[in-house]
Amino acid sequence: MWTFDAPPLAYWQETYGFKADQGWLDHVRLSAVRIPGCSASIVSKDGLVMSNHHCARSCVTAVSPPDTSYQVTGFVAASMAEEKRCPGMWADQLQSIEDVTPRIRAAVTSTDEVRQAEQRDSAISAITHECDEATGLNCQVVTFYQGGVYSLYRYKRFNDIRLVMVPEEQAAFFGGDPDNFTYPRYDMDISLLRIYENGKPRTGGDYLHWSANGAKEGELVFVVGNPGSTGRLLTVAQMEYLRDVVYPATLARYERTLSVVKKLSARSEADRRRYENTIFGLQNSQKAVNGYLTGLLDQQKMARKQAFERDFRNRIDADPTLKARYGGAWDAIADALTQERSFAVQGRYYGFGGSRLLGLAGRIVLLPQEEALPDSLRMGPYRGNGIERMKAEVTRAGELDPEMERLTLTAQLEAARSELPPDDPYLEAVLGGRTPAAVAAALVNGTKLTDASVRAALLDGGASAVKASTDPLIVVARKIAPLELDLARRDRPLEATVANNAELIGRAIFAAYGRSLPPDATFTLRISDGVVKRYPMNGTYAPYKTTFYGLYARSADFDDEAPWNLTPRWAEAVDKLDLSTPLDFVTTNDIIGGNSGSPLINRNAEIVGLAFDGNIQFLPNRFIFSDDVGRTVAVHSAGIIEALRKVYGANWIADELQGR
Amino acid sequence: MWTFDAPPLAYWQETYGFKADQGWLDHVRLSAVRIPGCSASIVSKDGLVMSNHHCARSCVTAVSPPDTSYQVTGFVAASMAEEKRCPGMWADQLQSIEDVTPRIRAAVTSTDEVRQAEQRDSAISAITHECDEATGLNCQVVTFYQGGVYSLYRYKRFNDIRLVMVPEEQAAFFGGDPDNFTYPRYDMDISLLRIYENGKPRTGGDYLHWSANGAKEGELVFVVGNPGSTGRLLTVAQMEYLRDVVYPATLARYERTLSVVKKLSARSEADRRRYENTIFGLQNSQKAVNGYLTGLLDQQKMARKQAFERDFRNRIDADPTLKARYGGAWDAIADALTQERSFAVQGRYYGFGGSRLLGLAGRIVLLPQEEALPDSLRMGPYRGNGIERMKAEVTRAGELDPEMERLTLTAQLEAARSELPPDDPYLEAVLGGRTPAAVAAALVNGTKLTDASVRAALLDGGASAVKASTDPLIVVARKIAPLELDLARRDRPLEATVANNAELIGRAIFAAYGRSLPPDATFTLRISDGVVKRYPMNGTYAPYKTTFYGLYARSADFDDEAPWNLTPRWAEAVDKLDLSTPLDFVTTNDIIGGNSGSPLINRNAEIVGLAFDGNIQFLPNRFIFSDDVGRTVAVHSAGIIEALRKVYGANWIADELQGR
Repeated sequence: MWTFDAPPLAYWQETYGFKADQGWLDHVRLSAVRIPGCSASIVSKDGLVMSNHHCARSCVTAVSPPDTSYQVTGFVAASMAEEKRCPGMWADQLQSIEDVTPRIRAAVTSTDEVRQAEQRDSAISAITHECDEATGLNCQVVTFYQGGVYSLYRYKRFNDIRLVMVPEEQAAFFGGDPDNFTYPRYDMDISLLRIYENGKPRTGGDYLHWSANGAKEGELVFVVGNPGSTGRLLTVAQMEYLRDVVYPATLARYERTLSVVKKLSARSEADRRRYENTIFGLQNSQKAVNGYLTGLLDQQKMARKQAFERDFRNRIDADPTLKARYGGAWDAIADALTQERSFAVQGRYYGFGGSRLLGLAGRIVLLPQEEALPDSLRMGPYRGNGIERMKAEVTRAGELDPEMERLTLTAQLEAARSELPPDDPYLEAVLGGRTPAAVAAALVNGTKLTDASVRAALLDGGASAVKASTDPLIVVARKIAPLELDLARRDRPLEATVANNAELIGRAIFAAYGRSLPPDATFTLRISDGVVKRYPMNGTYAPYKTTFYGLYARSADFDDEAPWNLTPRWAEAVDKLDLSTPLDFVTTNDIIGGNSGSPLINRNAEIVGLAFDGNIQFLPNRFIFSDDVGRTVAVHSAGIIEALRKVYGANWIADELQGR
Repeated sequence: MWTFDAPPLAYWQETYGFKADQGWLDHVRLSAVRIPGCSASIVSKDGLVMSNHHCARSCVTAVSPPDTSYQVTGFVAASMAEEKRCPGMWADQLQSIEDVTPRIRAAVTSTDEVRQAEQRDSAISAITHECDEATGLNCQVVTFYQGGVYSLYRYKRFNDIRLVMVPEEQAAFFGGDPDNFTYPRYDMDISLLRIYENGKPRTGGDYLHWSANGAKEGELVFVVGNPGSTGRLLTVAQMEYLRDVVYPATLARYERTLSVVKKLSARSEADRRRYENTIFGLQNSQKAVNGYLTGLLDQQKMARKQAFERDFRNRIDADPTLKARYGGAWDAIADALTQERSFAVQGRYYGFGGSRLLGLAGRIVLLPQEEALPDSLRMGPYRGNGIERMKAEVTRAGELDPEMERLTLTAQLEAARSELPPDDPYLEAVLGGRTPAAVAAALVNGTKLTDASVRAALLDGGASAVKASTDPLIVVARKIAPLELDLARRDRPLEATVANNAELIGRAIFAAYGRSLPPDATFTLRISDGVVKRYPMNGTYAPYKTTFYGLYARSADFDDEAPWNLTPRWAEAVDKLDLSTPLDFVTTNDIIGGNSGSPLINRNAEIVGLAFDGNIQFLPNRFIFSDDVGRTVAVHSAGIIEALRKVYGANWIADELQGR
């Protein structure tokens, strides 16, 4: 994930025999655009922009006519005149990058930490404002290496973006949640948009040409896009904390919720439909977290991380100045996390989790207390406009399923009982010797908080009303509140220690390795090199590409049952298609969320594909990158053309992409 | 894997609502046949027999004309007249089963163990001979539960078996070794044979009808065939020994050999071709052993096994007679294995492994010594006609690649050096402080044993010639021999203890559970129930079936590269086929090697498929059965008909199968 002002030219030349000159880099940079939450690229001389289907979802919904959902039907403009403007959509084109670290360092003169932050923020504001004024561009100061480098990114922003073509969501997300994060895959996850300027398609300027054949196995390809966030600079202690404490608890919580939702779902066909997406969503989250955890549990991967950390610390310790500045950061983090571990179980249960009703009761109890404090002494969620937001949430009446409340609360209390020591004050306060099921039933049946006006009256009544209330949920919440507040007081300084020292380590990375180690992802433009490559899977190999044959195969394998059903367009097109056309393919490039919609280009900067996902073995890359079996999954350029011409009858768009 | 004289009728009725009557069971039994090493079934009124392609391999090779290989081209008889007789092939049809345990028990009257075995063997011979004479059938006494039950199996043997049709090996074994033991899979692994009697197709008698539609997901299916061997009655201690000692060493050995063969293979294109199959074969063995090991390393599976063993021992201990007879067997095995563990590393290296030349030298040294002993005191391989066989092997000149000899011996010696203690006498004898590479080079370059006449002369010269030899390999072998002999002396009584007590446990199983636990596999006819079922894989689901689409997909995914290349017939047929026809499918039935060629039938005893493999998750079932993700892989009945009609132009055979 290299930044465009520090590409590893020597490494590329050595590894691939590829020499990128400045012209190549500038052309690629100017052909890439960032859109809300995603990446994209300009792919024709008339401003056609390519991204993923899921990146254009809000536009697709917004421009659908009242009686039709383009999510379901797809959309193909018959000509430019039919292209539909996407409300609120923009595209940012990166014009230039400037290192502003010295200016920001110069501005930070205080020795007081709070004052330092103010000085830094004010320098960043000044630089941004000055740049906006001077250039008319959209300027942003980006913090790399958690403060090791500050760069000024200048973007040209295009505000008139129109929808040209999207496939049906079912074709873009074929296989749905079960196949999400997996490969082999059969998704046409594309969207085509167009940049307009002054009401006309933008013409001229840089754009990526279309490759005649796409990429072959073993071929060098680049991904150009905006990776959102990685955790590769975390220390070993932080990764171990995630591995041992955070993720196991997260998975246990998902599992508890899933088991409740499955029970609810089994009540009736209507409930099955009602909870289907919740179940899929939870299973998808399980899949992702399990993937992260797999990497952290992988002893080889962790050994690599440990070796890196040893080398890193040795480099810092070898220089007395660096040692004095950064040398203590790792132990400081490790110590803080050791302390956090000692009450991590309490941290999971002291609070108002497990039931929406209990959550509302907790807020009703805490709001008067927090409101009475100065902002800086409040708990995080109650700062700033938190109080107002919370009040609105408490009074907004949502639908509450009492059966669900009872079951989730029971599950939460059962988990608390099995994890906390028997004499823990939380158990005493909430259960008092009764069973979780009995307590949950009594609380949910006995409370009046299901009524929004009752909640509003309690809010209005303030501390005295809360104190006087005999509502069983308020009574319990009053007992839990001091436990939570006490724990938060213990936790707050430890969290600050971790955050401050993580920032030091970020700077130390840059001090020790300079630009030879790319910074963690920042949702700004990066370029990543890799090759098209099969990988060992399931006792055999996952092929480097899939084909249209495979799409029809997977549908037929499941008897065309959702989410493996073909759309009518695809079902009809089968006899027209060359079924051996590549559909998706995999590469060793390094991407992460935010890279969705990134173009894959060959050494001639021609489009060979469109990144849309990673395989399941790729999930651990969030923390430790490895390309042994982790892969980027992309739509193949040849598949896009074949589908446009034969499934979507969009020859004019295919011609435009192919420069005909 | 139920025997036909003890099917779990109540269990089937309870689980599937399926009531099998004696007529159904007899019909199914008489429709099944056993062929050499495989299972098969009669599938038409004119004696057509269906099995796997790989079960007919020797016949296919034998009947190929001089200028053609039917392995490559496939074979389709245009009519019955063209069917080709398979030399040496037979088919056994099970006529009846009789429990002969009482008669054998009655014959064993001695208290001496050796005499007991003789009495038992002689009773078995008598029963078999008497049955052969009386019935004209082929009779066999089968030992179940390692001696808990003896049954007389009476077979009708058919000796005139002819080849009707086989696909090309590439279609039957599409995906080759990489896809072996995996699923999703796309193999047309069938062969069609015919039983002839008196020179004419056998007509009449029981046969399995063809299902009109094949099986749907969730449907009950039975596998009827001859599973070869399972290790489910092994004790926990035996499984732990395999897990901790045997399999890791096996895998290390495969890895050593592989790394050598890969080096040799990299020397030239000719070497690549020469060693290609060796590499695939080794990788396949790795895959299998890794699969077994995965099961033994699976804590949940092992916990189930441990719980079973506790229950089993409790049942035995609860009955004083059983306790006296069997109660000590588990600890006796565990103690013996603990002792074996103490010299397992020595056991791996004390000997003549790692080089064919060293192996020959070892035999030359040992043969005169062993020949001088009475048979019962010799090491196992030298007993019976072992001496003659060994001498023939030693003098038979095979091609020896000195480079391979040097590399494999180096690898063996390096492994010995890294595993044995530094002062181990083997290292002292063989290396004497030099490096493995130097020793291997000196031995391989210095020996004359590559010359068969030199080896023959040493054999002829007997002990004195061996003693006088200065050939460096003979010198080393003379030093190794006493180490090996000493170790064998320590090992022999321990192995006997394990074997004797394992037999007791086999009998104890029957005593404790009767027929409610089916006996371990014995390559005799069994019936296994299961359902057609998808399973979780790779973050999503493996579908319950694959289709012809998938075959063309997997070929296209790999650019038609071997072993995923289509045969000319299949490449040409693509436009004629209904590509959504099912090709292979998976079920939860319990099978193992020997079941290859078994029919899958529905509750109407109609053919719905043909078993040919298990998925990779199925390999642990050798020791502990589980159907969570382990699956039987079968060819689908509809795929067989579609291929016969449209790929192989064999309508007359398809008509016969479908009873038209």
